[in-house]
Amino acid sequence: MTLAIGIDVGGTKVLGALVAADGGVVAQEQRSTPPQDVPGAADAVVATVVAIVRALAEGHDVEGVGVAVAGRVDPDRRHVRSAANLGWDHQPVADDVEAATRLRTVVENDASAAGWAEHRFGAGAGLDDLVVVTVGTGIGGALVLGGRLHRGASGSGGEVGHAVHVVDGLPCGCGRAGCWEQYASGRALVREARALATERPGDAALMLTRAGTVDELTGPDVTAAALGGDPLARLAFERVGDHLGRGLADLAEVLDPDAFVIGGGVSDAGDLLLAPARAALARELPDWAVADVPRVLPAALGTSAGAVGAADLARTR
Amino acid sequence: MTLAIGIDVGGTKVLGALVAADGGVVAQEQRSTPPQDVPGAADAVVATVVAIVRALAEGHDVEGVGVAVAGRVDPDRRHVRSAANLGWDHQPVADDVEAATRLRTVVENDASAAGWAEHRFGAGAGLDDLVVVTVGTGIGGALVLGGRLHRGASGSGGEVGHAVHVVDGLPCGCGRAGCWEQYASGRALVREARALATERPGDAALMLTRAGTVDELTGPDVTAAALGGDPLARLAFERVGDHLGRGLADLAEVLDPDAFVIGGGVSDAGDLLLAPARAALARELPDWAVADVPRVLPAALGTSAGAVGAADLARTR
Repeated sequence: MTLAIGIDVGGTKVLGALVAADGGVVAQEQRSTPPQDVPGAADAVVATVVAIVRALAEGHDVEGVGVAVAGRVDPDRRHVRSAANLGWDHQPVADDVEAATRLRTVVENDASAAGWAEHRFGAGAGLDDLVVVTVGTGIGGALVLGGRLHRGASGSGGEVGHAVHVVDGLPCGCGRAGCWEQYASGRALVREARALATERPGDAALMLTRAGTVDELTGPDVTAAALGGDPLARLAFERVGDHLGRGLADLAEVLDPDAFVIGGGVSDAGDLLLAPARAALARELPDWAVADVPRVLPAALGTSAGAVGAADLARTR
Repeated sequence: MTLAIGIDVGGTKVLGALVAADGGVVAQEQRSTPPQDVPGAADAVVATVVAIVRALAEGHDVEGVGVAVAGRVDPDRRHVRSAANLGWDHQPVADDVEAATRLRTVVENDASAAGWAEHRFGAGAGLDDLVVVTVGTGIGGALVLGGRLHRGASGSGGEVGHAVHVVDGLPCGCGRAGCWEQYASGRALVREARALATERPGDAALMLTRAGTVDELTGPDVTAAALGGDPLARLAFERVGDHLGRGLADLAEVLDPDAFVIGGGVSDAGDLLLAPARAALARELPDWAVADVPRVLPAALGTSAGAVGAADLARTR
């Protein structure tokens, strides 16, 4: 059995996994991400990654290491161009880890790694053309096309959340206006729910049970209320799911995948999100009578998808 | 020298080319497309394709035949699912041509074939990740990703003109509303020019020289006036070019190509179209400081690109 190590480096925690060739997780190791507002922070994050690799590799024959990062990764898979949350600015992460561990290392974008895991071992197993959309606070994405991970010419592909959904629409953190993630993400869900609770305060009691006030309402509150049958929370999901499906239709016109795989925290609501998305997708592809409208599938792997995908990608040269 | 035949089957004409391995056209043959409103029309188009193949193959050793079609082509490259302009409805074109000519035949979408030719022999030669956008009456597209033509799971990939640009915007022939091709195509150019000529009749004399009236204004009229320095016509190009660049930015977020290659009749205006498109593309990628904003290149191959690309694709199994 060949083993590889995947490390998912997030802004709050670093998750490592020792992964078998079939995607099975043999061992895990998790540490907090070192604080970023101090001198030497970038090196401290590297040291944490190295420490986890050493702990997981101990006593095993390890084929390679994949490091998944929320940031822009060079297509050569050796450098992180920028990862604001980690203090990494043109950091040679693969060299750093290889020098310390003597294990062959590659770096990948975290959304790409998680999407790859869904293609290899999850909801998209057996499908060659896949768009994996991660609906969390924002929207991330990964493209598997022709059975290969599409990283893009400068390693920035798959940023589906920053395609414009509404011209000159809501401002986005990326600097554009009207990005899809402003309309179909967790942030949008909370905005819709707060607007509905403000418009119809008499109907908002259930949704506000946990939060207390409209301003304190969170995404998990809306999800809990919707799963409990609250009509207002369900309406918020319908609106967000509709925007999600409209954007999927745009991606279908461009990429025509076998399926969309939807992950991320907001997808915990299951069909409350996916049913309106599927309806919008079918409605927005009116001339696809002779084509196959892509399926919309829930992601099958949990929060370890990034580490599992990074480990698997470390096996490929 | 190995030779292949490419046939570009359009609504008005069928263009065939005998093509060398380096993309050079050794011989051409063109016929009118048979009329579509008669019984047996679908077979008549097949017969025209076969006649051109026979004429071009005469006396040569031909490796294969590629047929490029404006329609939805099965990813198995043997069937055309639908091609409204040709009367083809689930037509087994590859079988038809092989039975008649004994030459191995594949079918491709015409925009994909033309885009592939730009990748192999044209503006995108040497670039592995390429989005080719054909700006004519509408907008067509082709994706070359990782050096391979991306056809999509049901052969419908690359329809970039039908991603929505303006939510609930102008109605499109495809049945959706707000498609990119309603804002950044030849049709949009004429609409903008007519609106400007109506708003500012005193400035419209030059643009209307050829057409006479606002209602008779065509795309070539606007291009001719713009190339002649007419401010109103140039303003129409600036508006359409801006929409073009905004849409390219969306595609850059998703696909991160090395370059966009812009072809089609409207691109005859050169930088009058491409300069505002490049400006909008750079403006709409505000957080790409560490990434490489894709270049925007004019297509290098002319109207034979579809046939040349189809011939080259016939060489690949």
